[in-house]
Amino acid sequence: MFEKKTYIARRAALVRKMEGRGLVVLPGHVESPVNYLGNTYHFRQDSTFLYYFGLSVPGLAAVIDTDSGEATLFGDDFTVDDIIWMGPQPGITDLAASVGVSRTALFASFTAEVRAAVAKGREVHFLPPYRGETRLLLSGALPAGAAPSADLIRAVVSMRDKKSAEEIEQIEEACAIGYEMHTLAMSMCHPGVTEREIAGAIEGVSLKHGWGVSFHPIVSQHGETLHNHNHSGVLETGRLLLVDAGAEATSGYASDFTRTIPVGGTFTSRQRDIYEIVLAANNLAFDIATPSMRYVDVHLAACRMLIEGLSSLGLIRGSIDDAVATGAHSLFMPHGLGHQMGLDVHDMEDMGEQYVGYDAETPRSTHPSCSACRMGRRLEAGMVVSVEPGIYFVPALIAKWHGGGGPANAAAFIDFGRVESYLDFGGIRLEDDMLITSDGNRLLGTAPDGSPRRIPITPNEVAVAVRDMK
Amino acid sequence: MFEKKTYIARRAALVRKMEGRGLVVLPGHVESPVNYLGNTYHFRQDSTFLYYFGLSVPGLAAVIDTDSGEATLFGDDFTVDDIIWMGPQPGITDLAASVGVSRTALFASFTAEVRAAVAKGREVHFLPPYRGETRLLLSGALPAGAAPSADLIRAVVSMRDKKSAEEIEQIEEACAIGYEMHTLAMSMCHPGVTEREIAGAIEGVSLKHGWGVSFHPIVSQHGETLHNHNHSGVLETGRLLLVDAGAEATSGYASDFTRTIPVGGTFTSRQRDIYEIVLAANNLAFDIATPSMRYVDVHLAACRMLIEGLSSLGLIRGSIDDAVATGAHSLFMPHGLGHQMGLDVHDMEDMGEQYVGYDAETPRSTHPSCSACRMGRRLEAGMVVSVEPGIYFVPALIAKWHGGGGPANAAAFIDFGRVESYLDFGGIRLEDDMLITSDGNRLLGTAPDGSPRRIPITPNEVAVAVRDMK
Repeated sequence: MFEKKTYIARRAALVRKMEGRGLVVLPGHVESPVNYLGNTYHFRQDSTFLYYFGLSVPGLAAVIDTDSGEATLFGDDFTVDDIIWMGPQPGITDLAASVGVSRTALFASFTAEVRAAVAKGREVHFLPPYRGETRLLLSGALPAGAAPSADLIRAVVSMRDKKSAEEIEQIEEACAIGYEMHTLAMSMCHPGVTEREIAGAIEGVSLKHGWGVSFHPIVSQHGETLHNHNHSGVLETGRLLLVDAGAEATSGYASDFTRTIPVGGTFTSRQRDIYEIVLAANNLAFDIATPSMRYVDVHLAACRMLIEGLSSLGLIRGSIDDAVATGAHSLFMPHGLGHQMGLDVHDMEDMGEQYVGYDAETPRSTHPSCSACRMGRRLEAGMVVSVEPGIYFVPALIAKWHGGGGPANAAAFIDFGRVESYLDFGGIRLEDDMLITSDGNRLLGTAPDGSPRRIPITPNEVAVAVRDMK
Repeated sequence: MFEKKTYIARRAALVRKMEGRGLVVLPGHVESPVNYLGNTYHFRQDSTFLYYFGLSVPGLAAVIDTDSGEATLFGDDFTVDDIIWMGPQPGITDLAASVGVSRTALFASFTAEVRAAVAKGREVHFLPPYRGETRLLLSGALPAGAAPSADLIRAVVSMRDKKSAEEIEQIEEACAIGYEMHTLAMSMCHPGVTEREIAGAIEGVSLKHGWGVSFHPIVSQHGETLHNHNHSGVLETGRLLLVDAGAEATSGYASDFTRTIPVGGTFTSRQRDIYEIVLAANNLAFDIATPSMRYVDVHLAACRMLIEGLSSLGLIRGSIDDAVATGAHSLFMPHGLGHQMGLDVHDMEDMGEQYVGYDAETPRSTHPSCSACRMGRRLEAGMVVSVEPGIYFVPALIAKWHGGGGPANAAAFIDFGRVESYLDFGGIRLEDDMLITSDGNRLLGTAPDGSPRRIPITPNEVAVAVRDMK
């Protein structure tokens, strides 16, 4: 939690953006049950609630009156019996005061106050709910058919998308935990170890030092399966282990890194050839990204680098420019270069990609390789984005393209004979986190002495991390 | 997952219990979002769905027609695009066949089929929903005001409360993970280590070898705070660390153990005196529990043991029998001796304590120390229960009793002068898991060679585990 003044300033800025537009309604989270009401997952507050109110406490809701500027925190005090079981707990008034809110009310009056505002014809703005409990709360307070507010989304995104120095500090903390997770994974990457053992060990690290993982880790020898959460595999010599994992600091800020590690530490020459292409694309993004660029152009520059590399290996043929134009690379990287990061690992994804990754100036690109890009907008100082190029050999996708199911004209650039000799290859992704600065960018991740610290990434660094850190 | 025949037999038995009573509706779980729809907690299926259908897959629902005996599994196949991202996935027909179900339907028709049955005047039985998403699904399918079915609850409880040999094997697997978690915690229990580091490390163990923790672990030097999930403390010499933690095997079956560990390994004589009383009460339960006994009587026998010990230390005075009768011990142990365990760590808690822990023969005891007992019923072979006596010095509770707020007449047995010299003591709990057998009981937890294996529990065993396993 930051100092009280941070939250006061954020709410004041939001009021200015929404001035005279009635109520802004921000429900917090309740506990999320696993298998019965009393057995809950690790509590995670809603990120926008956290951004404006800073309280990671279940059972709160907030209303900001954009006419008066007043914020109200709704929540209930604990009873003496609760306190016997839970230890001393601050009351709602103290919680509110700690983030500069002076008006509090019982949780039950949240519904009544919102309904009263609706009855008076006042506007009520809310964000798209994504948990069942929040949908139930809002449906009890709002008229049937009430829709989330695009204006509120735009106002919130315009604030949350640029990170302050104190936010960057928290992301750096999450990056430091990510560093420890990934170097531990490397040290465990030996034949006979199970994917589950590594996934569990690195999640343990995230829980030792922070809130936990910023998303369910991907730890798989099937790196070509982009959203693979099956951890049943046993590591085998000659395979590549893809580890996509990050941490949340206890403040809620996230990191997100991917490394692809040869089991035992040594790349085959075929693996190393593909690896070097992906690494070059990752490095290129850091060479070129500046506040003057749209992220879709960083994406396309990285894609061009992939095509150049794949051409040199004979997997893509013909003109580089034409191959990029048709999206031929999207057979190998069917996703975008990255996404924004912050209090969510895919920052603000609950609010909709069209508001977070795109805007009026940069609508979603119609380029065939951009359909899965989460982020295309012009970069601004303070933004944090992931940089995560990859090359995958996805048998089902290769078969689809080979059968004519790819983007128009793209298949002509693919040497399917060669590509199909890679069907057992798997996939490689290399992901780092980038802060856009006033004159360029900076890799996030710092050593204890403050110097930049990148998770081992060159083939030699990785080999050392696997073999010598065991 | 067990063999297909297990699920066929369980559903057939349920149909016999509910025969001619219309539809039994069992919604499975969807993914549970953390901070946006696509970022989810570790998926956990609903336990009753898992019991009858065995499929740990999100987005399923089931209906059992108790007239025809037919079961239907509702769910949708993945698209080719899903498979590119998620890897090859079994279709709904294959999933259903794997657990002996021949009729499948699209997920969307679940609502329509339930509504059609309601429209025809058929009975529809469902269990109390506890997740928002399940409440929303059921409210779309059922008439307003429809109530969970007590008959279905009784039928399900009468099956799930006695564990088969294959279920016990799974609980033993969860116990083996619990052993590793607790011995790791002991080896880390040294001054300067944070509670969070230990909590994270043991959760990592649960994720390496199983599904994860069976509940959010309690790792606290404030053992007197019964539901304490604050892990910010730094271990200090002279304090006691209470660790209440268990694992879920990948099958979903749970373990649940508590140990209380002196930081650094050595008990003070005051700590050891209290510890030995709690240990004697734990051992007593294993000495006396048999299928012929009600668990409330095991609870009261253990409480009597606590009172005898506290009397010998001068904290309780007067007649032992009278002290037990007034519930004087509940100042020190304001909870019951244990709860049932199985697919839920508090097994079937979603269905209501009055059905799970009590029955017509044994309603909740009016004894002043039993108000917080989760389990009072007569034990039966195959039941698994936790045994978790404790002695706590809860400042707020001691103040309440001293001020006249305890149960009638109980305060007269308390030597408040002495008790108040323990206000900084904290609390001790020792918990093991017990299987009721045909002629007695058995401690759950086996060594790799099949012999019984108890997590270190005597003061000497604990000292060795802290000091020598470092």
